Amino acid sequence: MTAELSLPQGFRAAGLASGIKEDKSIFDLSLFVSDAACCGAGVFTKNQVCGAPVKVSRERVPSDSIRAVIINSGNANACTGDRGIEDARWMTSQVANGLEISEEEVLVCSTGIIGHFLPRSPLEQGIPKVIQQLDSDSQAFLDAARGMMTTDTVPKQSTRLLTIRGNTVRVSGVAKGAAMIAPNMATMLALIMTDAPLSTSQTDQMLRHAVNRSFNCVSVEGHTSTSDTVVLMANGAAEVEELNEQELNQLQSVIDEVAMELGQAIIRDAEGADHFITIEVSGTKQRSEAFEIAQTIANDALVKTAITGSDPNWGRIVSAIGRTTVKLNEQDVILSINGTLIYENGLPADFDEQAVSEGMRQNRDVLIQVRFPFGDESTVFWTSDLTQEYVRLNSEYTT
Amino acid sequence: MTAELSLPQGFRAAGLASGIKEDKSIFDLSLFVSDAACCGAGVFTKNQVCGAPVKVSRERVPSDSIRAVIINSGNANACTGDRGIEDARWMTSQVANGLEISEEEVLVCSTGIIGHFLPRSPLEQGIPKVIQQLDSDSQAFLDAARGMMTTDTVPKQSTRLLTIRGNTVRVSGVAKGAAMIAPNMATMLALIMTDAPLSTSQTDQMLRHAVNRSFNCVSVEGHTSTSDTVVLMANGAAEVEELNEQELNQLQSVIDEVAMELGQAIIRDAEGADHFITIEVSGTKQRSEAFEIAQTIANDALVKTAITGSDPNWGRIVSAIGRTTVKLNEQDVILSINGTLIYENGLPADFDEQAVSEGMRQNRDVLIQVRFPFGDESTVFWTSDLTQEYVRLNSEYTT
Repeated sequence: MTAELSLPQGFRAAGLASGIKEDKSIFDLSLFVSDAACCGAGVFTKNQVCGAPVKVSRERVPSDSIRAVIINSGNANACTGDRGIEDARWMTSQVANGLEISEEEVLVCSTGIIGHFLPRSPLEQGIPKVIQQLDSDSQAFLDAARGMMTTDTVPKQSTRLLTIRGNTVRVSGVAKGAAMIAPNMATMLALIMTDAPLSTSQTDQMLRHAVNRSFNCVSVEGHTSTSDTVVLMANGAAEVEELNEQELNQLQSVIDEVAMELGQAIIRDAEGADHFITIEVSGTKQRSEAFEIAQTIANDALVKTAITGSDPNWGRIVSAIGRTTVKLNEQDVILSINGTLIYENGLPADFDEQAVSEGMRQNRDVLIQVRFPFGDESTVFWTSDLTQEYVRLNSEYTT
Repeated sequence: MTAELSLPQGFRAAGLASGIKEDKSIFDLSLFVSDAACCGAGVFTKNQVCGAPVKVSRERVPSDSIRAVIINSGNANACTGDRGIEDARWMTSQVANGLEISEEEVLVCSTGIIGHFLPRSPLEQGIPKVIQQLDSDSQAFLDAARGMMTTDTVPKQSTRLLTIRGNTVRVSGVAKGAAMIAPNMATMLALIMTDAPLSTSQTDQMLRHAVNRSFNCVSVEGHTSTSDTVVLMANGAAEVEELNEQELNQLQSVIDEVAMELGQAIIRDAEGADHFITIEVSGTKQRSEAFEIAQTIANDALVKTAITGSDPNWGRIVSAIGRTTVKLNEQDVILSINGTLIYENGLPADFDEQAVSEGMRQNRDVLIQVRFPFGDESTVFWTSDLTQEYVRLNSEYTT
């Protein structure tokens, strides 16, 4: 069930402009706090070159005692050597001091320009202030969603309610986009909070399950940034005892939904994108095979530019499928675009190209469905098209 | 030694307009013939979805009895089912009949629109005519280079001479570009001919060696087409006996050079490209590691758009390196752009950003050098940048 955007019980948030960014009026600092200790888990970028905050936070989860996540935008604190690590730790200690908790209970994320040292002076003022402003209302939640934005054009939030034994359990998430613009090696950051009672290992498992079906299934240009981070915090503040297996499954579905809504919101807000593309691949033996095919189609510059031009160019899609490592023949591929059969039995189908093209031109959403006769596994992947505007945005900055 | 563009001894060629393309005056048919039987080898697309000509030609090499390669542009004869195979075989039989040789001695390549059946009637007229026009002069060689062009703006040829025991051995090649434009799933085709005396297995080995250092090291957008083909023919017409090991090595170098010149010519002619980018990766333990890093940088949309904007954006390059499977730390990377040290010891170097950017803006060529301390292996890779013009060209067509 979708709900008004709000925080789960026992969580407070705040966001403000501390002065890290050039325009001092733009929000650049967010804090999320649980009143009680949470079980916390994190999934971090697989990029071997990763930001200092990733290195610091990664050491602190999974844990049964996470209290806060501090996030700044405007500076990614990546490629900043040992000093970057010290700065990231210093941020968490400032939060810990203000909240009178331990440094290890604080996670940290930074997003923005890379290769520049974190400016401490705006944060020295900003962190006590953001602590002071912590609130549990929806305005505070929105402010905190704003504080993590870089090139995002809209804040990204999601809330779902679940009723368990007559009590309400809440799952709420915020995210910022992965769209990249020079000189920002912008980052995908997301934080999901729930007042459900979970153990540390349950928190960790649920986060990984959700990430595999959401943030790992979205791509703008296939570039994993140096700072990508997704965190799940569960504080058990809802009036519910330990969950049974069925309830855990229900909660998992809701966490998956929140993660998918945030992941899709990132793609919908991708820089310079004209189309939002959903790629469904089904009928493979392994889910990993469906995933490889979906991801290859999603990251193919020729497929993306064809969709920009509202061209149902099956040749580029079938050719992208053919260059994966999944063993197949061209006869095995059944391709539909927006519900119209395009390609089957190794040959283009007899479809109305004009009508399909017109449908693509008039709608922002494009659905590419690829079916195989090999098995029952499937996946869904979301991406954006590749426009001249994307290239302009990503090439016009000069150092 | 570079030489005037001409065919090796014992080879003849021709090219003409048979009427496959919409504009009936544009060349669309090329034939290359050796007067004596050649040792022939081929390297074909690894895409599992491949054109009918690839399927037919692949069965006929390696061989000690190849006489001719027939190539048409304007229609790729790909995704055309069993009828496509019949059409490709029919093309070779038409050539075989005209030359009074066996069908199995003829290879076939097609490039152009995919998913459309090959039109036989222009070829019925065109093949006898192209046989009639066969000649060994440089005009015939140029005509044949023109007949295989699709969206290429210039024909691509290369000739090198080698003196062995006082006699001249010649290596000549032609290629057409891999740049793709809708609805053409354009193809990279190349044919290299030599009058050196080689065995079938030597021909095969030498081709693979050359392809690994040339055509496999170029990429426009990382999409392997359904029809990519490279063929080497050696007819032994030069007045040289069997080559010794040193002479074979010399010949290999010359074949590598011709293949590299053709591969680079393809990138230089890539649609809508502003910059020609050379990526040198050195100091890895395995050549495959250097290759993976170079290829990942080359295919990264964020790196390409940064170069379009003349931005020495080391963050995007270092981040692209970090997302490869090669085990490394950010401290291991030494990065230079156009000879200027940009990044070292996990931190940006103290370089003049304005000067490096200005150098990139004023020159078409960009050199990215990445050095590691792990070993002695290295590779070189060539690519183009990603411009608004590329997106326009690849998105403006609508079926």
